[in-house]
Amino acid sequence: MPRYKLTIEYDGTSLVGWQRQPNGLSVQEVLETAVERLCGEAARVYGAGRTDSGVHAMGQVAQVDLTKAMDHEIIRSGLNFHLRPAAVSVLMVEEVPDDWEARFSAKGRAYLYRILNRRAPPMLLANRVWHVGTPLDADAMQEAAQMLLGKHDFTTFRDSLCQAKSPIRTLDRLDVTREGEEIRIVAEARSFLHHQVRNMTGTLKLVGSGKWTKAQLQEAFEARDRTRGGPTAPPDGLYLTSVRY
Amino acid sequence: MPRYKLTIEYDGTSLVGWQRQPNGLSVQEVLETAVERLCGEAARVYGAGRTDSGVHAMGQVAQVDLTKAMDHEIIRSGLNFHLRPAAVSVLMVEEVPDDWEARFSAKGRAYLYRILNRRAPPMLLANRVWHVGTPLDADAMQEAAQMLLGKHDFTTFRDSLCQAKSPIRTLDRLDVTREGEEIRIVAEARSFLHHQVRNMTGTLKLVGSGKWTKAQLQEAFEARDRTRGGPTAPPDGLYLTSVRY
Repeated sequence: MPRYKLTIEYDGTSLVGWQRQPNGLSVQEVLETAVERLCGEAARVYGAGRTDSGVHAMGQVAQVDLTKAMDHEIIRSGLNFHLRPAAVSVLMVEEVPDDWEARFSAKGRAYLYRILNRRAPPMLLANRVWHVGTPLDADAMQEAAQMLLGKHDFTTFRDSLCQAKSPIRTLDRLDVTREGEEIRIVAEARSFLHHQVRNMTGTLKLVGSGKWTKAQLQEAFEARDRTRGGPTAPPDGLYLTSVRY
Repeated sequence: MPRYKLTIEYDGTSLVGWQRQPNGLSVQEVLETAVERLCGEAARVYGAGRTDSGVHAMGQVAQVDLTKAMDHEIIRSGLNFHLRPAAVSVLMVEEVPDDWEARFSAKGRAYLYRILNRRAPPMLLANRVWHVGTPLDADAMQEAAQMLLGKHDFTTFRDSLCQAKSPIRTLDRLDVTREGEEIRIVAEARSFLHHQVRNMTGTLKLVGSGKWTKAQLQEAFEARDRTRGGPTAPPDGLYLTSVRY
């Protein structure tokens, strides 16, 4: 059976996240339904990362096996036709070897977190950013973020429901920059723990608003205790931007 | 009575445009309702430009007279509180002289038109761009756009319902640039005719897709006949970015 790699964009606002759930439409479910409508056969679609409810993607990656080969462009346009009106779009379809797996062949994942840092509530970026009305010091956030780089126990930033066997991860990049009213946080690692980017963001926001010093962030990080970390940033500002193979 | 200048952002998707209409909520109506709720008195809000249904603004400007002076920050946060859940946000409030008028004191208006030029339909930018699935040559569009600069009769790009006395306008800037999958058109003039930016965009798209040559655009422009121009681009991609005084 030919295996296809799908690169996917979605607006997570009205979706319950990547994984099938009983309480609403997931990206996985709408993709599997679209494959069934296009090919007339049930198929499983596996993703590179399980984004949460409300989280967006510009470059989620998934795999699907079809019983017979089809032209890439026909798969793409056919899936996009059958995906409507769900807020999911297939950007690219490529054929991959049998042993390639969206999740386990991934060498890196990149996320973007967008904060709109201004008084007025966002309209054009509603559901696309975390709106923080009080001033944040992006330079202080950037300086603090660098302490989290490298191989560490990330328990302080790990959701209590996280199913990963180990809390050890290697954070390759965590860059905080300001562009006008927007603060952008770029995070890269081979893989992340559940809620790791949102928990790091919520904690860096404490540094940015002056509530925490860099030293307090370091202490909380070293405590390896989720209750010592800052709050979980909302899903609205988070984007899975790309998966590297 | 103190006069205030309001700088406003809105998502035009679910609004019928700037001006009050019987068939749905306008920006003007939701602002006037918010002023009434905040101040307990009816007031008229006048805008710098009448954006159409579906058109967005990052920097619309309006004026309102209040019977008594109020702190700028209280007006702003109070209006934003009472504007909910309408997709309108007051970014800035400034006191201005009695003879200042949002519409007639304006020295220039700037618009942005965003085209998403890729095969897959937009999800993260749904209602925020014009989706054009076939390749566009932004360089050819930019070259053609330069022919429209300066003082001309813009009848070819003027809606048949336009109420302006003269079809003569001076176009100061019309720049077409590509940033990845997105084509951005920036238009600046003292004022524009009804649908002028959308009609110029729809016509430039014909040049970008190779259907029209630069010479054909020039001929249509010189014909001073709306029926010779290209189609009106959809409102989704249009933003009133700023008004200059």
